[in-house]
Amino acid sequence: MDTGTAYGLRLGAPLNDLAQVGPGTPYGEVLRSYWQPVAKVEDATTRPLRLRVLGEDLILFRTRKGKAGLLHPRCVHRGASLYYGGVEDDGIRCCYHGWVFDTEGQCLEQPCEPDLGLHRDRVRQPWYPVQEQYGLIWAYLGDPAKKPLLPRYDTLEDLAPDEHLIVNDAGVGGGGPALLDFNWLQHWENVMDPFHVPILHARFSGFQFTPEMALLPEVTYEYTDRGVRSIQLRDLGDGRTLRRVTEVMFPNIRVVPSPKLSSGQTNMLGWVVPVDDVNFKIFTLARDTDPEFLDKLRSTHEGRPWRELDEADHQRMPGDYEAQKSQGDISLHSEDHLTTTDQGVAMVRRMMAKQIKLVAQGGTPPGVAFDEADRLVHIEGGNYFEGDALTEELAAAVDD
Amino acid sequence: MDTGTAYGLRLGAPLNDLAQVGPGTPYGEVLRSYWQPVAKVEDATTRPLRLRVLGEDLILFRTRKGKAGLLHPRCVHRGASLYYGGVEDDGIRCCYHGWVFDTEGQCLEQPCEPDLGLHRDRVRQPWYPVQEQYGLIWAYLGDPAKKPLLPRYDTLEDLAPDEHLIVNDAGVGGGGPALLDFNWLQHWENVMDPFHVPILHARFSGFQFTPEMALLPEVTYEYTDRGVRSIQLRDLGDGRTLRRVTEVMFPNIRVVPSPKLSSGQTNMLGWVVPVDDVNFKIFTLARDTDPEFLDKLRSTHEGRPWRELDEADHQRMPGDYEAQKSQGDISLHSEDHLTTTDQGVAMVRRMMAKQIKLVAQGGTPPGVAFDEADRLVHIEGGNYFEGDALTEELAAAVDD
Amino acid sequence: MDTGTAYGLRLGAPLNDLAQVGPGTPYGEVLRSYWQPVAKVEDATTRPLRLRVLGEDLILFRTRKGKAGLLHPRCVHRGASLYYGGVEDDGIRCCYHGWVFDTEGQCLEQPCEPDLGLHRDRVRQPWYPVQEQYGLIWAYLGDPAKKPLLPRYDTLEDLAPDEHLIVNDAGVGGGGPALLDFNWLQHWENVMDPFHVPILHARFSGFQFTPEMALLPEVTYEYTDRGVRSIQLRDLGDGRTLRRVTEVMFPNIRVVPSPKLSSGQTNMLGWVVPVDDVNFKIFTLARDTDPEFLDKLRSTHEGRPWRELDEADHQRMPGDYEAQKSQGDISLHSEDHLTTTDQGVAMVRRMMAKQIKLVAQGGTPPGVAFDEADRLVHIEGGNYFEGDALTEELAAAVDD
Repeated sequence: MDTGTAYGLRLGAPLNDLAQVGPGTPYGEVLRSYWQPVAKVEDATTRPLRLRVLGEDLILFRTRKGKAGLLHPRCVHRGASLYYGGVEDDGIRCCYHGWVFDTEGQCLEQPCEPDLGLHRDRVRQPWYPVQEQYGLIWAYLGDPAKKPLLPRYDTLEDLAPDEHLIVNDAGVGGGGPALLDFNWLQHWENVMDPFHVPILHARFSGFQFTPEMALLPEVTYEYTDRGVRSIQLRDLGDGRTLRRVTEVMFPNIRVVPSPKLSSGQTNMLGWVVPVDDVNFKIFTLARDTDPEFLDKLRSTHEGRPWRELDEADHQRMPGDYEAQKSQGDISLHSEDHLTTTDQGVAMVRRMMAKQIKLVAQGGTPPGVAFDEADRLVHIEGGNYFEGDALTEELAAAVDD
Repeated sequence: MDTGTAYGLRLGAPLNDLAQVGPGTPYGEVLRSYWQPVAKVEDATTRPLRLRVLGEDLILFRTRKGKAGLLHPRCVHRGASLYYGGVEDDGIRCCYHGWVFDTEGQCLEQPCEPDLGLHRDRVRQPWYPVQEQYGLIWAYLGDPAKKPLLPRYDTLEDLAPDEHLIVNDAGVGGGGPALLDFNWLQHWENVMDPFHVPILHARFSGFQFTPEMALLPEVTYEYTDRGVRSIQLRDLGDGRTLRRVTEVMFPNIRVVPSPKLSSGQTNMLGWVVPVDDVNFKIFTLARDTDPEFLDKLRSTHEGRPWRELDEADHQRMPGDYEAQKSQGDISLHSEDHLTTTDQGVAMVRRMMAKQIKLVAQGGTPPGVAFDEADRLVHIEGGNYFEGDALTEELAAAVDD
Repeated sequence: MDTGTAYGLRLGAPLNDLAQVGPGTPYGEVLRSYWQPVAKVEDATTRPLRLRVLGEDLILFRTRKGKAGLLHPRCVHRGASLYYGGVEDDGIRCCYHGWVFDTEGQCLEQPCEPDLGLHRDRVRQPWYPVQEQYGLIWAYLGDPAKKPLLPRYDTLEDLAPDEHLIVNDAGVGGGGPALLDFNWLQHWENVMDPFHVPILHARFSGFQFTPEMALLPEVTYEYTDRGVRSIQLRDLGDGRTLRRVTEVMFPNIRVVPSPKLSSGQTNMLGWVVPVDDVNFKIFTLARDTDPEFLDKLRSTHEGRPWRELDEADHQRMPGDYEAQKSQGDISLHSEDHLTTTDQGVAMVRRMMAKQIKLVAQGGTPPGVAFDEADRLVHIEGGNYFEGDALTEELAAAVDD
C-alpha cells in the first residue's frame, strides 16, 4: 500500500502571533515599541502621499514651513481623505469643508463655522510623531507613554569626506520588486538562514555573489543583547578563513554585510518594514564612496536584473523573492520541519515569542532606549578575513 | 507626552441601517416603498439588458409588441440566465430549454414538455412591474400589496413648445463617472450640505460654477412634508440677495437647482438610485430649450471635464466625486463629528431613521400616493434673486 | 394586486454535497475513489508544472530518467514551492535549501545537513501515485488502502492501423474555453439532458450539429451498472429511426457520441475533471483516422468558432458554455423546477447521492475494479440508425 500520500493532508497554519502586524496583534505591538522608517525624506512634500505602515493607512505631507506630518487619512469632521487636502504653511486643509490640521492633528481652522470654529480644540485628527534622520522619515506608531529615543547606529556615523550616506527603499536584499508582496517574516528570518546561500544563490542561480559564497559554511549562532547573530566560517582554501557575521536586531533590522564580501564591519543596515500582513518594504542605509553602491549590489541572474526576467527565467533561476514568496502570502509555519541547519530561524522565532510576552506584560524590549547614553547602537556584523593568504603557487597546489 | 495620536484608534462603523439597500434591509425597504427609475426608455429593447438595482440582479427587455419587462435573471426552470434569452412577441424565451415568460413572469410555453407544458401555470418567473414616464423606465420593487401610483412632478409638466424634456443617466451632479462606486448616501446627504460648496467647489477647484457660489451662505434648514429643505441666502453685494432653495425628497430625490444660478423654480430633478451598497447611478430629468443643458452643466476643472483629468489633477482639484468616494466605499459614519454647519445632514439622517421605523411598522412614508389627487408633486427648490441690483458704479463702490 | 413578483424572493442554495470537490467533501470523496486524468503525457517534463485538481494544488514533473511525479507543492522543509525546483535524475530538488524528493516523496538528500541528512527518512513530501495510459497522466487522489486498478475502455482498444488515438484537454463538448470557469456538475448533468439540444443548439444557435439533431427526440432513461443512460429516438422521416445512446458513467465520465452522427459505438469518451469548485477541464480521448477529428467536432456559430465571437455574438448565439456558466459559478440547484424532461438530470443527482452514502460507509462505488478481469469497461453509447432509408422519391412523398 502507498504510504505518505497527500490524501487526508491537513494544510497547517501560520504562526500568526509572529507574522501579523496590525494594531493590537502580538508582534504588531512589539514593532510599535520602536521607531520605524516609513519613507524617504524627499517623499514628504506639499503633495500628500498615501502610506500604509503596519496595516495602518496614513497620509504623509510636509507643511510649507517644512515640517513633516503623518496623519490618519479620514478627516475627523466628515471623513473625506486628507489625500485630497491642500497643504498650507502650518498644516493641511481638508478639501470637503476646509478644516485645517497641523502636524500634531490639532485643528487650526473650521472655516464654515462661526469664528473659524469656537470648539475646534475639541477635535483632534489622529496623528503619529515623526523625526527625520539619515535621509529617512521615522515614525513612532506605539503607545505615547513609551516613546523611546530615535537610535543612531555607529556604522552610519562619522562619514569620511568622500563617503556618501545612501538611502534606498527599493527592496535591496529582497531579490524582487520594491514592494514585496508576502509576509515580512519570511524575509526577515531568512537573514538567520545562511545555508540557503550556497543552494539558492549558487547552485540554482549561478554564482550570484562571489565564488566564496557558494561554499558551505560552518555556522554558529548566538543570542545577543539585541537579537540573534550567526558567525559563518568559510575556509577560503588559500590559508585564509572568512568569518562572516550577520545579525537580526529587534524588532525588524537586518544586518547583512555585502555578499560581495567587502571587508570589515558592514557598511549597511536594512529595516524590513511591514506594509501590512502580506506586503513589506525594505529601507536600506549604507555608507560608501560610490553613491551607486546599493544599486550595484543587487543580485543578477545570468547578468540580468530581476525585473528583466520573464516567468520562465524566474522558474529556472529563482532567487530570494521566488523562494520566499512561494512559501505563501503568509507561510504555513506549522508545517515546517526545522533541522540542525534551521537553528538560526528557530532562535529568531523563539526570541520573537519572548518579546511578545515581554511587551504584553509592559516590559521594555531590547534596544529601546530612553537615555541619551544608550542611544548609539553598535553593529557587529561584517566580513572578516582571518589568516594570511597563501601565495598563488601555494593556493594552486592546495586546489589540486 | 504626545496626546491624540492614532495609537489604539478604533475605526468605527457605517450607519448600515441608513446606508444599506438590499432586500430586507431597513432603508432598503423604505426605498422599495416608492417607484424607482431603473433605465432610460430606449434601454429596453429586444436585446436583454443586465441591470442591478437595490442589490438585485434583473433583466430588462422589451417584447416585440413593445412592452417592457423586468425579470429575475435566473430561469425558474434550471437556472440559465435570461440575459441569453430570445425576445419574442409576448415574452422572452430561455436559451437552454426554451421556456417562454411574459413581462409578468407567466410561463407561456415549455416547448419540450407534452402540450407545451400541461402544468406551466404552476411556475412563475419572478418579475417586477414597470411603467414608462418622462423618458424613464420606473420599477416598483416593493410589497405588491402597497404599490403606489407613479408620481408626476410639476416642474416637469406643461413644457413650452420650444422646451425639451432631457433625460440623463450619466451621473449629473456626481462630479465623476456615470456609475459612482461608493455608497449612495454619501452623495444624497451632500445635497443638504451647502457649506462644502465655497470650499470644495471654489477654494479647491477654482470657481467651478459661478463666482456667487463661492460666497459663504447664511443657511436655514426645515423639515418638509416630503423631506428636508435648505434655504441659503447669499448677499450678492450689489443690493440683491440670492435665496437658493435645495431639497432632498424621500426616499432618494435630489432637488438641486442649477449651480450656474438660472433663476426661478428648478428645472431639474435627480434620483440617486443605489445599484447596490457600494455603487449608484443618478437619473436626472430636466426641461430646457437647449437639449444640451445637462451636459453643459457638468462641472469642469480648469476648463477640463473630469474624465480628462489624471490622478495628479484629481488630487490637486478634487470635486464631489473625490471627496465623497474618499469617505470610503461606505463611510464610517460613527466617526463623524457633526457641527452647526452639518445640521442639514443630521436632519436627513434623523428623518431617514424615522421613515425606517414607520415602514417597519407598516406605515406609509411621505410622498407615497394611492389617490390620483395626490399624485402631482410640487417642487419648491430654485434660485430666487431678491432685491434690485445696484448699478455697476454703485456695485464698484460697495466693493471698495 | 400583482402576484409572483420578486419581492421577498429567497435566493436558494447549491446542492453542495454533489457539487463540491475538495478533500473531505461528500462527492469529493466519491471522485477520489477513481483514477482521474490530470494532464497530457507531454505535460510532464523537467520543467515543473503547476496543476490544480479537485481543489488541491500540485506539482507535476518528469525525472530525467523519465518517471512522472505528482507532489504537493509546499516543500516539507520550510515551504518553498517545488514549482521552482530543479529536476534531476531521480527526483526534484527544492531551490531554497536543496532537499531532493523522488516521485514518491521520499527525501533522497538534504545537502546542507551532515551526511546529506541523517534523518532524511523521517520526512516525506506528500505525493500521489500516477500512471500513464492513452496519452494521459492519471492520478489517484484517494485513500491508499482502496487504490483500484486503472481501467481500460473497449472503445479505445484495438485501433486499426490507420486509426489515431486522439488526446485533447481543450474543453471539447464544453462549448467555450479550455478551462471552464463554473461548477463541473452543471456540465456533467447536462449529458443526461437531451432536450436542450433542439433548443440551445438548433433554435438559438442555428443548426450547430446536423439537421437531425434539431428534432425533438423521444427519450427513455435507465440506470446502468455504472451510471445513467439515455436512449433517444428520432424519426428521421425517411423510414429510418436514429437511436442515440448517451451515458454518464461514475464518477465524472461523459459518453456523448458525435453530435455529427457518425454511426455505431461512440469513438470518444470525456472526463469532466474539477479543478476546484468553480473551474473544470474536460479530457477527451477519441479514435479516428483523422487526427483532427476532435478539433473539427467543435461547434461553430454561423460558421465561426466560439473564441472568435464577441460579447454581442455570445448573447445572440449562446451555446453550452453560456447556458451553463449563466446558471452561476455554482448553480442554486434548490431553485430548479425539474419537469418530465429533466428526468435524466434527476436520476444523475439521485445516483450521486446514493454513491456519496455508499462511499461514506466504506463501500466500493460502481466501476471501481480491483480484479484484472473487471478492468476493461464496455461502452454502450453510440448513434444507431435503424430501419431502411426510403428511396429519395418515397422520402419526398412522405415530406409532403
